[in-house]
Parts: sequence; C-alpha cells; structure tokens
Amino acid sequence: MSLATPPGDPGFRSLDELEEIAAGRLPAPIWAYVQGGAGEERTLRANRSAFARATVRPRVLRGVGEIDLRVRLLDSPCAAPLFVCPTAYQAKIHPDAESGVARAAATEGVVTVVSTLSSHSIETIAAAAGAGSRWFQLYPQPDRAVERRLLDRAEAAGYSALVVTVDTPVLGVRDRQARGGFAIDGSVPIGNGSDVVPPSRGPILDGVTYRLRPDAGATWELVDRLREQTRLPIVVKGILTPEDARECVDHGAKAIIVSNHGGRQLDGAPATLDVLPDLVAAVGGHAEVYLDGGVRRGTDVIVALARGAKAVGIGRPILWALAAGGEPGVRQYLAMLKLEVVVAMALLGRRSVAELDRTVVGDRSEPPI
Amino acid sequence: MSLATPPGDPGFRSLDELEEIAAGRLPAPIWAYVQGGAGEERTLRANRSAFARATVRPRVLRGVGEIDLRVRLLDSPCAAPLFVCPTAYQAKIHPDAESGVARAAATEGVVTVVSTLSSHSIETIAAAAGAGSRWFQLYPQPDRAVERRLLDRAEAAGYSALVVTVDTPVLGVRDRQARGGFAIDGSVPIGNGSDVVPPSRGPILDGVTYRLRPDAGATWELVDRLREQTRLPIVVKGILTPEDARECVDHGAKAIIVSNHGGRQLDGAPATLDVLPDLVAAVGGHAEVYLDGGVRRGTDVIVALARGAKAVGIGRPILWALAAGGEPGVRQYLAMLKLEVVVAMALLGRRSVAELDRTVVGDRSEPPI
Amino acid sequence: MSLATPPGDPGFRSLDELEEIAAGRLPAPIWAYVQGGAGEERTLRANRSAFARATVRPRVLRGVGEIDLRVRLLDSPCAAPLFVCPTAYQAKIHPDAESGVARAAATEGVVTVVSTLSSHSIETIAAAAGAGSRWFQLYPQPDRAVERRLLDRAEAAGYSALVVTVDTPVLGVRDRQARGGFAIDGSVPIGNGSDVVPPSRGPILDGVTYRLRPDAGATWELVDRLREQTRLPIVVKGILTPEDARECVDHGAKAIIVSNHGGRQLDGAPATLDVLPDLVAAVGGHAEVYLDGGVRRGTDVIVALARGAKAVGIGRPILWALAAGGEPGVRQYLAMLKLEVVVAMALLGRRSVAELDRTVVGDRSEPPI
Amino acid sequence: MSLATPPGDPGFRSLDELEEIAAGRLPAPIWAYVQGGAGEERTLRANRSAFARATVRPRVLRGVGEIDLRVRLLDSPCAAPLFVCPTAYQAKIHPDAESGVARAAATEGVVTVVSTLSSHSIETIAAAAGAGSRWFQLYPQPDRAVERRLLDRAEAAGYSALVVTVDTPVLGVRDRQARGGFAIDGSVPIGNGSDVVPPSRGPILDGVTYRLRPDAGATWELVDRLREQTRLPIVVKGILTPEDARECVDHGAKAIIVSNHGGRQLDGAPATLDVLPDLVAAVGGHAEVYLDGGVRRGTDVIVALARGAKAVGIGRPILWALAAGGEPGVRQYLAMLKLEVVVAMALLGRRSVAELDRTVVGDRSEPPI
Repeated sequence: MSLATPPGDPGFRSLDELEEIAAGRLPAPIWAYVQGGAGEERTLRANRSAFARATVRPRVLRGVGEIDLRVRLLDSPCAAPLFVCPTAYQAKIHPDAESGVARAAATEGVVTVVSTLSSHSIETIAAAAGAGSRWFQLYPQPDRAVERRLLDRAEAAGYSALVVTVDTPVLGVRDRQARGGFAIDGSVPIGNGSDVVPPSRGPILDGVTYRLRPDAGATWELVDRLREQTRLPIVVKGILTPEDARECVDHGAKAIIVSNHGGRQLDGAPATLDVLPDLVAAVGGHAEVYLDGGVRRGTDVIVALARGAKAVGIGRPILWALAAGGEPGVRQYLAMLKLEVVVAMALLGRRSVAELDRTVVGDRSEPPI
Repeated sequence: MSLATPPGDPGFRSLDELEEIAAGRLPAPIWAYVQGGAGEERTLRANRSAFARATVRPRVLRGVGEIDLRVRLLDSPCAAPLFVCPTAYQAKIHPDAESGVARAAATEGVVTVVSTLSSHSIETIAAAAGAGSRWFQLYPQPDRAVERRLLDRAEAAGYSALVVTVDTPVLGVRDRQARGGFAIDGSVPIGNGSDVVPPSRGPILDGVTYRLRPDAGATWELVDRLREQTRLPIVVKGILTPEDARECVDHGAKAIIVSNHGGRQLDGAPATLDVLPDLVAAVGGHAEVYLDGGVRRGTDVIVALARGAKAVGIGRPILWALAAGGEPGVRQYLAMLKLEVVVAMALLGRRSVAELDRTVVGDRSEPPI
Repeated sequence: MSLATPPGDPGFRSLDELEEIAAGRLPAPIWAYVQGGAGEERTLRANRSAFARATVRPRVLRGVGEIDLRVRLLDSPCAAPLFVCPTAYQAKIHPDAESGVARAAATEGVVTVVSTLSSHSIETIAAAAGAGSRWFQLYPQPDRAVERRLLDRAEAAGYSALVVTVDTPVLGVRDRQARGGFAIDGSVPIGNGSDVVPPSRGPILDGVTYRLRPDAGATWELVDRLREQTRLPIVVKGILTPEDARECVDHGAKAIIVSNHGGRQLDGAPATLDVLPDLVAAVGGHAEVYLDGGVRRGTDVIVALARGAKAVGIGRPILWALAAGGEPGVRQYLAMLKLEVVVAMALLGRRSVAELDRTVVGDRSEPPI
Repeated sequence: MSLATPPGDPGFRSLDELEEIAAGRLPAPIWAYVQGGAGEERTLRANRSAFARATVRPRVLRGVGEIDLRVRLLDSPCAAPLFVCPTAYQAKIHPDAESGVARAAATEGVVTVVSTLSSHSIETIAAAAGAGSRWFQLYPQPDRAVERRLLDRAEAAGYSALVVTVDTPVLGVRDRQARGGFAIDGSVPIGNGSDVVPPSRGPILDGVTYRLRPDAGATWELVDRLREQTRLPIVVKGILTPEDARECVDHGAKAIIVSNHGGRQLDGAPATLDVLPDLVAAVGGHAEVYLDGGVRRGTDVIVALARGAKAVGIGRPILWALAAGGEPGVRQYLAMLKLEVVVAMALLGRRSVAELDRTVVGDRSEPPI
C-alpha cells in the first residue's frame, strides 16, 4: 500500500510542502529569481489559472489495471510525456546543479533540456546524464563563433536536439527580481565559458531612437542558418501565436514549445494553455507541439496533452526540488509527478497516452476559485 | 414560535457553528481527513460554488400551509429526498459511529448508506437502524469470495439496495490528508473484518509500465455480475459523464449517484451540480438519478431536485454533526436540514417535491461572490 | 462651496463612515439583526454586487444648471424617487424610532413606509409625519379582525397606500441573527398592540408532514379581499418573477415592489436589480414598479430608474442613520443621498427623472471587482 | 548591460516601489487626494482591471534591433506617444511642482498638460518647460473675462493646444478625500490667481429644485466659442460615449481624451480602455483620440495604442514620482516607462508605433486575477 520512494527521501509529501521547503532553503534574492515573473506577474498567474479553470471527465469501469505513460519525442522513446525545462544558474540553487537534475531525469526516463547559461558545462552535464536523453537550449549569441562552438560541443556530448529560445531578444522587466536584489555577478558560474552572454537587459538610451543589442535583430533566417549548421532536430521555444507556429514549420523546425518563458518575459502574454489549441491547429501535424508554463500536477499534464500537446515541460518545481533535496529531491518530484499522471489516467479511465484525446477535457470552463 | 429540538441538543444554531464545533472536537489529522479533498481541492470548492451560483425563483401567495417532503426512492417511502452518504471509519469521529448515524437517520426517516469500510459491522448498524432504510455501499473487492460474503450479509441484515462505488480504482492524491498525518493503521477498526480492503493507494512502480492492483481492472462486467449475485437493486455511485450514465442504464442499474467522491478523488473533475442536467437527460428516465457533493443547505437540496435529481446525499455535515454531538447531533442536523427544505419550499411557493421542476431555478448563473 | 448640512449634524462624511458609526453604537445582537440576511447571505451580497456590476454612461455639455428630482408616486407628488422601506422594531435602534424617521422623511419630501411591527403606533408615527406622505405596510394577520382594525387605523391616520408584504409566509433562516443572539422578547415594543403577530418562524414538526401557521396559506384571494376592504391603493411587496408581477396586475395592485426582503428571506433568490427589467416588461405599464435591496448610493438610484423602476426603497442605511444620529441622522443621510442623485444626474447630463432612460446604463456588465 | 539612470536617482526599482515611497512621503490627507476616487472607487479599479484583462500577442524573430517610439501629436513631433495629465495643486506634493514636472517631461520629450488649477503660474511653468511641448487645460470659468485672460496667457506663453475638461460641471462625490480630511484652503497656492475657481462642489439646496452653479449650464456652444477665441487646436477631455465623441468632431475639436477623470468624478462610469474602440470608431479618423485612466506600465501604453489611441496620458504615477523625488523622480519614471514600452515592443516584435495595430492584442479577455 505504501508508495516506494527513492533513497534519500527529501521528505516532502505534497507539492505545496515542497514549495515551502524550497522557500525556506534559498536566500531571498535567489527565491525572488526562482519565483518571480515579469511586471505585475499577470502572465505568471494566468499560466496557473488556465489549468485551474480546466475540468476533466472521469470515465469508470474501463479496466485500468495497466497504465502506460510511454511516448516517443522526436522519434526517441521516453518514459513519460515530460521534459525538464532549461533554467539558468542552477549552482545558485544547489551544488548538484544541472548535473544532479540530469541524473534524476535520466533515472526517471525523461528528457532534460540544458540551458546555454548552465552552471555546469555541457560536457559535465552530459556525463552525468549518461544514457539519459538531453537536449541543448541555445540563446542566439551575438558572436557567431561562440554560437558555432556551442553547437559543436553539444553535438559531441550527445545532445539529441537543439532548442532555440526566440522569446528573449531583450530581458523582460522583472520587478520582483529587481526588488529582491538578485544580480548576476562573479559569484554565478557560467559553465560554458565567460564568452557566453546572457540575453541583453535591453536598450541603451541614446536620444530619440533606442538601439537594442545586435542579437535583438535576429529574424527567421536564424532558424535556417542553424538548420544548416547542425544535424540535430531544431525545436523552437517561445511561440505564442499561430502565425509564428506556421513560421516554425515553414523554416523546418521539428517541434515548437508553446511558452511564455514562465511568465518572465512579457507581462500580459497569454497563458500557454489558453493558446495551445490554436497553435496545434496551425501546426497541422507538421511538427511536434510541446508546452510549458504552470504545469505542476498530474492533471495539468493530462489537460495539456488532451488539448494537443505531445509533451510538457516542468520549470519551477524542478528548482524547488533541487533546492529541497538536490538530485534525490528532483528524482522524488519527478516520480511523484509521474505517479500523479498515472493516478489521474486511472481515474479518467485512460490506459495510454494515445487515449488522451479531446474527450478527456470538459468544454465547461469555470472562473478560477 | 420556538422550534422543537431533539433531546440532548448539541447546541449549534447554524451550519457554520456546527462546522466550527466539529473542528474544535476532532484531532487535526482526523479533521484533515474529514475536510480534505484531492490535490488543490478545486473540485471540492467547485461543488460548493456551483450551488453558490444557482438562483431560485420565489413565488408568492400560493397557499403553502402544508408542505410535503415525502418521496419514494427505489420504490420505498422516505420522509424526505435525502440520504446519508457512505463514509468510512466513523469510530474515528465519535463512538456512536455508523450505528448512531443509522439511528438518527431512521428517526428522521431518511435512508442511510453504509460503507464497506464502516467501523461497526453490517449487522450492528442494521440492528441500530431498526425499521429505518439502509443501503449497503460496496467497494469492489479483489477477492470475490469476500465480495460475495459482504453481499450475503447485507441482504441478510435487511439492506434494501446495493450502492457500488466505481470511481475508486485507485485512491486519489489527497494532499491535505497526507500533510495532516492521517493514516489508516491498527487503531482504525474495520467492522466488516480484516479481509475487507480499502481501495488501493495505487500503482506499484515497476519500471516503465505501472501495474495497478487487480481491482483497478474492473469493467462494466462488474455490474452484470453483481446483478446476478443479488436481488437488491443496484445503484452505481461515482458517475460524471453522460456516456457512463448510459452505460449504467444499459447494464441494468436502477439508479445512479452523480458524485465526484466529495472532491476526494480527481481534482479537476467537474462540480456534480454542473453536470447533473446532462446526466439526467442521458438517463432518460430509465433509472433514478441522485447527487452528492457540496449539499449543505435546504436550498441546495431544492436546486438539485429542480435540476432533475430525485434525492441528494449528505456527506461531510453528517460527520460534523457526529463529531459535535454523536447520534443526537446527527438527528439535529437532519431535522434542521429538513426544516430548511420546508422553509425554502414555502418561500418558493411549492407544496410538494413534485412541484420542484425547472421553473424553480433561474437561468441566470452569477459568478460566486 | 461648503454643502449646507442639517442642524445637529451627526457627523458622518460618507456612507462607509455612517455604517461604521452605527456598528459602534449598537449592541452586537441588534447589529446582527440589522445587517444579517438569510443563510449564507448570498442574496444579501448579490443585491449589492448587481449594482457594482452596472455601468453608467456620462454625457457632457448638456446644460445641467438645474436638476429636478421630483416624481409622482401613486399620483402624489414626491421630492425624489425614493421611499423609506418598512423595518420592524426601530425602538431597538434609537428612541426616535419610526417617528423620527417619519419626521426626517417628511422634511426631505420622501415617502415613509411604516411596518406592521413598528415600535411606535400607527397614530404616533402619523402625527410625527405631519404633512409628509406615509404608506402602511401590512403583514397578513391570522386574525382577520386584527387585520381589519389595522387597515381602519391606517386609513384614519392618513396613510395613503397599503403595502402588502407577500414574501414572508414563514420567516427565513437567518443564521447571523441566530448566532448573534437577537431575540424578540418583552423588551421589544410592538406599537400596534400585542395582538399583532410577527411572521411565523415556521413549521411545527409533526411527523411526516409539516403544517405551517394558517397565514402561510394565503393566496391571491388576499389581494382581492384587501382591495374590497380599503380605498387605499394596494402595493404588493416581495415580487421576484414575471409570473407573479402579472398576478399583481390581474388582482388590481397599483404598484409592486421588486424585493427579496433585503436578502433576509430566501438565500439564493436573485438580486432585485437583475430581475427588474423582466418584471417591468411583465407589468407592461399597468402598475408602477418600485425596487428595494442594495440601494445605497445616488448612482444606484439612477441605475434602478434607468432599468425601469419608478422609485427605490432604502432599508439598512436608514437604520444606520437612525442609530448614528436619530432623526437628524436620517435627515442627513436622505439629504446626502438626494445630493448624490443630483450630482450623478449632472455628471450624466440628465436634468430630470424623465430623462433617465435605458441609454443611461451601459450594456457592458463587468464582474464585481 | 546596466541601464543609465538620470542623475539624482530617487532610488526606486519598480512602479510598486515608487508608489510605496510616495505613500510614505506624503501626509495622509494629501495621499487620500492623490489616490482616491469617487464613491466606492469602482471606476478607479475598473480602469486598472481593464488593462489587467487585456492580453498581448508576442511575435518573434522579427528583427527588433531598433525600436522607434516617435509620434506626431496635433502635428508636432513627440519622443513617445505619452503625455502628462493635468493635475491640480502640485505644490502640495513637492516644491518642484508643475515646473519640475514640465522640465522632466521636456527632458524626456513628452507633452505636459498644465492644469487651470496649477500651483505655479502658466508663465513660470512655460519657462521651466523651455523648448518642451506644453498644452493648457481649461476648466470653463463662470467669469468669461477670467476665461479669456487664461487663454491669452496660455497662447502668449507658448502653449500649443487647449485641453477643455468637460466632465466636471460639479465635483464628484469623493469619499476617500472627504474622510481623509483633504481640504482646499489658503495653504493651497493657485498659481493662476485667486479669481480662478475650482469646479463647483455642486448643488445648493433650495427646496425642491436644486440649482447648480452657472458653469454647470455649459453646452456644446462652449466649444464653438473657444474655437473662435483661440487659434490653438482644441482637445476635449472627458469623453466616454460615441455620441459625445461625434459631438466633438461636429464642433471642430482636433482631438478627444477618453477619460473618466481618473475615476474621480462618477463612480460607475466605465473603464476608459473598455469604451475606447467604440469611440475610435465613432470619431472615424476626424480627430485624434487619446486615453487616460489606469495607464501604469509599458504594456498598458501598447494595449491602448493597439485599440486605437494615438497617445495616452499618465496621471497618478507622475504625482508618485514627484513626491518621491521631485523633478528627477518624474524624469526617472518617464524614462522607466519609455523603456518598458521599448522592451514590450521588442518582445512583441514591433519596431515602430505604426506597427501597433489590432493584431497586437488578443481577443481573449480573461477575468482579472
């Protein structure tokens, strides 16, 4: 009857408890960085409230003795339709950092996506992941030689997809982070070298017209160029409109991630779950569609899949789990989340991911309570 | 002018006061068990907010000198369109337990539904109920001999219907209960014997595929089998979709209970009141339709009946009343609830349950305030 | 620039402040009686939130140098489209009681409606009102001789309309009042004699069927009978459905009051403002339509009139003002309210009550904020 | 990477922090004046919640290396589509008062609108503004000679437009201000002379009919008269309906300001953003349309422009910034706001104001969270 827990159980019994433990472990500026969003954090809250408005339709007596979570993402097998979102500077959270996360993800059979701005290096994380799937997330670099070198290293280290983040030509206005005193300084290790630069804070004031840093000038040509530079399938991260989803297809992306950067870039951007169906329709099956933003519980995973996502990414909870318990914490959270998905599928009367179609979710959408 | 109250008045003057008294009487882990729901408790709250959004249409000067609450449920007379929901382990709440509840229900003329997981035995509770109507709730048992023995005992002890709960192939994820430290251990008596097992906590992790306990494999064949094994009318509890409501009819159920297990199983499941009309339509008069989940006040009872339920079940308030005052507490709550129904009918200008049709409820549905 | 205030200014500068002062003056049980509603007070809140959702459409540069609030109600001139709602037991609030309220209303030129259950007698209040308009509110009395005597006294004392309350065959379930310890006992003077009885608390439990007190049996024949017994125009108070509004017209009522008894009778009844337009349409000009419930501010008055009411009644704020300052308090509140109506009309670009048509209110109805 | 800040940085890192600093600097009555609105402040909140419900549609990879905020307002070049709203009595906030605001606005290249009721004189403020654009706001004066003299002074001092406020025939009912003890007395300097009078508090009670002060009698003839009296383009401020917007065009206004006076006049008036599109349609390109009310963040500016405004006015934040840091505070706020607009445009993939069309905003409008 008791649920098997991984060794070194970090001791949380629910997601709420995990978040509280993490809040108690991290210094206030780091916590502000982890939790904060852009502006008044409307988009941050909207990501959650979109899931809170969704209803699901339990079916009964459908023989749910075996539940199968397995999917194929970009033609590779995964234990569940989940991936770990790329997040920067994880050594600020726990010394296990990206390597610990990668080991935990590998153990649980899910993809980990490694940030350009990781604290550990591409190669260190790859070694930790072992046989586990890892994808490399790229912030377009002003210096193309740097960009090229990153691609080469990722390929050499066995990363199997390139995730290009396109929603950050400049950094969003992050009030909580600014007030909380979070700063990127010498104490934040950049695993991939000091020539790798974070996205621009933005405009330099120069009179009437504001000039952004050159990398803000990127166009869809970027995707074409990357496609020529790497044999890895390209995933475009940060898409919120059908128009841009079609651009991704037209430029040869193999997948898109419907994302508003966890509500950290443009306050007022829609909840990812709200726009998902239109984007799935726009893509028309020509690319895989993933989603991140506000995914916390097993039911959230199922709702996103029922509305057309092929997999979902997990962001902040991974950082909470890393803060609370390092690698074992992340493993426990991922196991708990997979278990929640299994329980929800059993209660919905669905035995495999393929059965998670539109009939799983209600058309009734209540206001958040 | 003063309202006659039962002897041994437990001293609450309103439902809110009752809930407060109960909260003060029970240890925190038990209270977490009583009050908690699944996950973030969205469904738990939705059950209530659906009633809070409903409006009723008072009619005046219609001669309401006599109000008649009587109904027939499964062809037996009842004093009111109410039943006591099955809930487990009541000895944790008050020594009167299921026997006290059964006596109170009998006194007030309403059906009591006795859980498989009752603290007192089937026979003890039946003796307490005396001439009062009781139905037996069955969790499908992995061991068919156990299941068979339970049915035989229930029939022998004068239970007049079999309520099969189908929404619990595995237990839901109950965060509040987990954090509150509620545990089923040796201190919880199982009146029906130690070979009766509670619903599985769920999956055993075994690599890529998760195998649930065998009883999770039940299909609609279960209902056919039970129909052959007992002469009692079968009520299927835990239906939330029109598709499953039709299955119940097709498999010979005499009644269904629209229920999300009091919000304790799958967070995100819809409020029972919200789905009720579609399920009533799906059943098309071929079975009786009952509802539980969030029913607290006289007006709630009326709203559910006006939307097509033939009776409603009361869950948590019975436990509050049991905690606050044992059998007399339950009797007072049931009397108070019936009185509220009578008052509401008088103010609505309706004299009998048959007059509670769709014109009683408004089509205006406001957001919860 | 300073606004002239009546002598003996009770010292409140806003409605909120008035409510706070009153709360501080009255013992808790009386305050619970004044403020409380039925059940969970959903209807009580809905009355306010309906006004809070309404928007108005300011027009500019329309020459608002003179604003005229005068109307004719039941063919008599009034200084403003306002009346004081009948409320019981006002001596519990302030020794000025109904007489002070009547004097204040007369000074401000608005109708006062006097309750059957007034603390002062019909005749005393009439003497206080002097030339001011007063209407008599009747609770149907089980003893027809008592009813007859009340009618005769009201006619003799110069009351010019009979307001029959039809929404109280039994008293509603008033949780706040019950918990607050409010009780009608010997300390509450009934100005019209001890044979005048308050509405029944309701059912006496007598087994399966509940018998209400005889006056709960009233039908529309009551209105016919009263019409024969008095030459006063009959106003039916407590109408919430178009069906009943048509009944009023059919039975010869000269006016109806759309009212849910200030949210004190049936929790779940709709906000009066929400149902007003349908009732105005149902009446079709054959009777005047008034509204009470939640009217607090000048804009509320205007919104109700723009949606078809000919006048609105003020309930709780009169009691607050009476508690805060006796007769001068009521006078100040009424003057403040009239001033708010004038200011709102000026800002809406409307010069007379006749200009308050449907174009005054927006069709946009936002959620309460 | 670090953002250049003006010398004398008042030290706020976000809008919230600015508001908190201002609240701490000002005496309570002044703060009540700054923050308060009419009545229950529904309109005040609605202004904000309308922006909070809006969503925007980020586009990616569109080459946003240069962002151009420049616009022409009334045929004059401006650095950004922003203006400073006219507000009275700024010497109560900070000794820099309107002159400091004008200098800051000039530095940042945005128009400042100077109130009739400024603390500094028309001429002093003009001298401070230097080459910066300033418009003069006129409250219609009961004494036409005073009105004429104000126009002449404004023209002579280089003001380039006349903004006529038409929503204040009487002052609104401002509860917070009244309770907060804010009073206009000798301590409030009126820079333009003691014969300039603030808008009337309103009606003098004189029996049945209330006579407002003569200036409340203004009609559309006012606009015609002003057009003859000045060569300045006329902007009509305080329009909320399409009918009045058309009147403005018919009477030769060059622009309108969709405004509810910051929620200070008629509680219940709609949010300006909600009515904007209908007013833009009514004007049909025959005048420029501006908006104020609730604009706080860069995204708010963009949403208003995408819905058809040509520029937006900033009210309370200017007063916060003035309180927090005098002229440098205002400069910092304006720079911060412009930067937020630039960042938002970059994240929306729009390079110039002309690209801010209807496709920028979503048609999905969520409830405020």
